[in-house]
Amino acid sequence: MDDSRLREIPFHKETIYEGSILHVEKWQVTCPNGHSAPREIVVHKGAAAVVPVYEDGTTLLVRQHRVSVDRVTLEIPAGKLDRADEDPLDCAVRELEEETGLTAERMTLLTSVLTTPGFCTEKIAIYLAQGLSQGSTHPDEDEFLDLVRMPLDEAVDRIMRGDIRDGKTICGLLMAREVLSRQRAQA
Amino acid sequence: MDDSRLREIPFHKETIYEGSILHVEKWQVTCPNGHSAPREIVVHKGAAAVVPVYEDGTTLLVRQHRVSVDRVTLEIPAGKLDRADEDPLDCAVRELEEETGLTAERMTLLTSVLTTPGFCTEKIAIYLAQGLSQGSTHPDEDEFLDLVRMPLDEAVDRIMRGDIRDGKTICGLLMAREVLSRQRAQA
Repeated sequence: MDDSRLREIPFHKETIYEGSILHVEKWQVTCPNGHSAPREIVVHKGAAAVVPVYEDGTTLLVRQHRVSVDRVTLEIPAGKLDRADEDPLDCAVRELEEETGLTAERMTLLTSVLTTPGFCTEKIAIYLAQGLSQGSTHPDEDEFLDLVRMPLDEAVDRIMRGDIRDGKTICGLLMAREVLSRQRAQA
Repeated sequence: MDDSRLREIPFHKETIYEGSILHVEKWQVTCPNGHSAPREIVVHKGAAAVVPVYEDGTTLLVRQHRVSVDRVTLEIPAGKLDRADEDPLDCAVRELEEETGLTAERMTLLTSVLTTPGFCTEKIAIYLAQGLSQGSTHPDEDEFLDLVRMPLDEAVDRIMRGDIRDGKTICGLLMAREVLSRQRAQA
């Protein structure tokens, strides 16, 4: 398809705020109709997340407080890339091990989700982790979290009840279940 | 469960950037161990999105360019709330009508997704729209988009192939399919 009718082309980028995590830019773009328009963009270096699934069909979620929304959330293990060019798989392996103590024999990329592309560059690569072995956890010093193990089907029920609301977690759990059910259908 | 072991409590908030769309704040929080720490937060007034599903099992997606990720994306119809206290259902009805020309007899809340709660307050309420009637579209002047109708099952296949990557869209389509399959199982 011809996308030139849709495409916005940036011709100027200016840094508005350079924080320790957030980097905010103002872009000027040329719209398909030739007009120019401003776009405020949060530049994020990206992240990786993991849906660990045990042989018995359970998964392991992280219970933590998110001050942005003042809620305790249930989320799949995840963390930011160290650098924008870090391989997300390396990040996923590290975060899984740090937050849960798990190592995996098999890591399968489920997707790389665009969390909120209207104003943010963030992509989160989400992996399905299988063939799990337990080691010890060592979370970051300023991370406070609980681990909650539950059947994947129960996690899906919690999504449908509105009890699990984190975007990457909904995507990861529902896609993991779809992959596993397609694998079973083929077996 | 006792969440005080997890909870971060903000004691200071400072505006860093006040843009036309983005509002960025720096919060100082007290961590569960008593230490204080900074949190950079994008304050967003929220949005609403809609998964329209026709009687024949097809859905309608919006094809548009997202300059933040320089990609043409397939997304469910969506838009920002007019005000932080707008009822997301009113916003969903308006955006569905503006972007697709559709009105719906039934709107069912699927969830309110936290798009990226690590640094952003954004919530997107996602509705399943059924009993659809077609009117004319009238998108915003600076919105350039195509409409693509396809079976919901094909949209799910596109998610699994990594062709649909927008977070709210993955959540909305997979949750809509789950609701419809549970409805069929009960019928």
